[in-house]
Amino acid sequence: MDDTLLHIDEALPGGGTARLSDERPADIVEVLNTLSAEKAAEVMDGFAPERAIEVLDLPGLDDAAEIVGHLPTEKAVTLLQGLSADRLTDIFHDLETPARDSLIDRLDADTRDSLNRLLSYPEQSAGSIMTVEFVSVPGNWTVQQTLDHIRKVESTRETVYSIYVLHPVRKTLQQAVTLRRLISGDPDAPILSVAARRTPITISPLASREEAARLISKYDLLAIPVVSRTGHVLGIVTVDDVIDEIVKSGTEDAQRFGGVEALQEPYLRTGFGEMIRKRAGWLSVLFLSEMLTASAMQYFETELEKAIVLTLFIPLIMSSGGNSGSQATSLLIRALALGEVRLGDWWRVALRELPTGLLLGAILGLIGMCRIFLWQHLGFYNYGPHWMLIALTVSAALVGVVTFGSMAGSMLPFILQRLGFDPASASAPFVATLVDVTGLVIYFAVAATILTGTLL
Amino acid sequence: MDDTLLHIDEALPGGGTARLSDERPADIVEVLNTLSAEKAAEVMDGFAPERAIEVLDLPGLDDAAEIVGHLPTEKAVTLLQGLSADRLTDIFHDLETPARDSLIDRLDADTRDSLNRLLSYPEQSAGSIMTVEFVSVPGNWTVQQTLDHIRKVESTRETVYSIYVLHPVRKTLQQAVTLRRLISGDPDAPILSVAARRTPITISPLASREEAARLISKYDLLAIPVVSRTGHVLGIVTVDDVIDEIVKSGTEDAQRFGGVEALQEPYLRTGFGEMIRKRAGWLSVLFLSEMLTASAMQYFETELEKAIVLTLFIPLIMSSGGNSGSQATSLLIRALALGEVRLGDWWRVALRELPTGLLLGAILGLIGMCRIFLWQHLGFYNYGPHWMLIALTVSAALVGVVTFGSMAGSMLPFILQRLGFDPASASAPFVATLVDVTGLVIYFAVAATILTGTLL
Repeated sequence: MDDTLLHIDEALPGGGTARLSDERPADIVEVLNTLSAEKAAEVMDGFAPERAIEVLDLPGLDDAAEIVGHLPTEKAVTLLQGLSADRLTDIFHDLETPARDSLIDRLDADTRDSLNRLLSYPEQSAGSIMTVEFVSVPGNWTVQQTLDHIRKVESTRETVYSIYVLHPVRKTLQQAVTLRRLISGDPDAPILSVAARRTPITISPLASREEAARLISKYDLLAIPVVSRTGHVLGIVTVDDVIDEIVKSGTEDAQRFGGVEALQEPYLRTGFGEMIRKRAGWLSVLFLSEMLTASAMQYFETELEKAIVLTLFIPLIMSSGGNSGSQATSLLIRALALGEVRLGDWWRVALRELPTGLLLGAILGLIGMCRIFLWQHLGFYNYGPHWMLIALTVSAALVGVVTFGSMAGSMLPFILQRLGFDPASASAPFVATLVDVTGLVIYFAVAATILTGTLL
Repeated sequence: MDDTLLHIDEALPGGGTARLSDERPADIVEVLNTLSAEKAAEVMDGFAPERAIEVLDLPGLDDAAEIVGHLPTEKAVTLLQGLSADRLTDIFHDLETPARDSLIDRLDADTRDSLNRLLSYPEQSAGSIMTVEFVSVPGNWTVQQTLDHIRKVESTRETVYSIYVLHPVRKTLQQAVTLRRLISGDPDAPILSVAARRTPITISPLASREEAARLISKYDLLAIPVVSRTGHVLGIVTVDDVIDEIVKSGTEDAQRFGGVEALQEPYLRTGFGEMIRKRAGWLSVLFLSEMLTASAMQYFETELEKAIVLTLFIPLIMSSGGNSGSQATSLLIRALALGEVRLGDWWRVALRELPTGLLLGAILGLIGMCRIFLWQHLGFYNYGPHWMLIALTVSAALVGVVTFGSMAGSMLPFILQRLGFDPASASAPFVATLVDVTGLVIYFAVAATILTGTLL
């Protein structure tokens, strides 16, 4: 592990952590992420406090809570006090007791109060990622007064590009003003004269992080105010937090679609035991469900013994159903996530997937039929006297299985959403398993219909 | 289709498109997206030009090029001239000739020049999504001069929050200044005194859009300057463009992982033929590859005939391999995309996946063994006199197949990246197919080893 640090020292002649501390905070984070929390704490302890705060403030720093835990208490308190409120909350969410309790007691009263308030919001809520360091001014101020105020508080605010104008008495949110409009305004004009005409876009503290991300991205905002039911601004969620959020939820969705519980940490930093836990659960559930295929095949054992040739196509038919299902699921998960399709659209989707599945199944059925014809005629394999009926069985089964796969795969995200789950919990392996069991039953039912009296 | 418009009219008493035009541009876009391009053009034509420009400027508007094509030429030119340079480029990328040529000729010389320059960058590059409407000032100006300049040009710039300071003579990029630092600075101080100490983060016009997104998100920037090899600022990429980019590439990756070619348009707006094309290709390729399972089974036909009981577990064993492969692939695609894992780390990953796969396989093997024991003892099914050997075969095969699945699934993204492909082109169905064929061979090899002399 120390190699990385050495490497950095070599790259920057003069060496040592003193050199590392001159890099950009985001680059320092990259180096610290390659170290153990203990070693990273040691390096951070060598930094000037302002630099250490800048580094700790970046959400990209893994194990920030653990690093804080390894710092001398005095130093830890100094750094924590300097953090932005949203990052501080983040770190305290991850801190273990007793370190957590002893540190919280040593924060100054203001910081502790805002921390306790932010910690009270549920972990996936907009309230939990908001910061309280925003700029607000009373609605009876002028442009000049507002600018003077911003100059004074600039260094302690996460963003000053959105300014929130409050009712002079009730302190409720009246308008939002952007800094670019503000500096272009007449200094003596009232602040409200440079505000946007429309009521500002706001979000409730209990709304999801994803909703905050969606609104910021839809309306191209730099920040969105988090507003209580009484109309008071509790904090703001900024665009950079939202980017982190979008990337993180993209990763979680991708992992879940692959059939893994979302990892909390990067792949190489996830412990072996943790990795097994995240994967074994789903793998076992899928395995237990897939056991139904063994039961289905036991049920059709007589048919299998009579026509062993039917077994040759089982993997081919089953996997085609799973593949078409996985295609449909991935399309619908994203369409639902982006709001392109709503719950009520399920029947529109079903009406599209039915002909799509039929045609895709027909295409595969045709290829399958060609294969059996070719192999039979070229003498690669002898499917017996009823080879044409077998080809027909395989093709018809493919149409049925692929259609079922498309339908099941497209409806699953709707069903999950209807039941109150995240549609993104539908995974490719889950759909495949669902379709496998049914696929076998469809195959044998088709075989019984076409082949009874000849092969069966 | 007109229903939606009617619905909007009802919701907003007073009715008509006049009412719709009072909504926020992003909300207008949502309504227009439910209409045909022709109808949307009709509605837009009824808007005041400034409003129509605001709407057309949003990348969320589907079929923008088609809508422009349906507008009266005079109107189309007026709107296009008002667009930001990056959006104009975007729309011209999608416009068909001859509309494209006739419109480009009617733009004013400045707009046409910048458009032609932007159109010359490859479609996936940072240059193709940059805008040329940024603020730059010579390095010998004062803070006050810069502020005065910003006030003058504010309305014609996409962002004024990052100001680029150029060398007074050579016009190359010297520094970047944020508006928040600028307004806090002493008006008479030279502009360079409020600049960041570090050289600004820049990007080449030929770098990928993803790289622009990565840098903006890593360094929490509001915009990144696109700089030529000679050090001149060609344009900037802003944070809102990057959010759209991240969301779009997340969708493409999710669709590809599901085994679909990325759709260009939302699910419900993709035509039936287009949908079939995007899905049939991969489905057919996978089907052809999966045919190897039929060949493998033909090869082991003698064994199958002797021990039909072995066929019962084929779907179970194959799907477990596919599932563990899909887990590993989804983990590694994201880890590579986020830069958590690099190409050179492949052996670290292999060294982790080997024991992970062995343990996961052992867990499933144990469950499988229990199932056969239980079914045999409870009399649900009779696996014959050699049932213990069969249980052993199934368990051993599961260990082998799951280990192979984890290894193949985790190495596939590395191999793709090494070959110059996007690791995200590895799909769950692709991994499953890869593992299916090998899984069958592993199963029969294990069976031959354990059962020869008894069942085989």
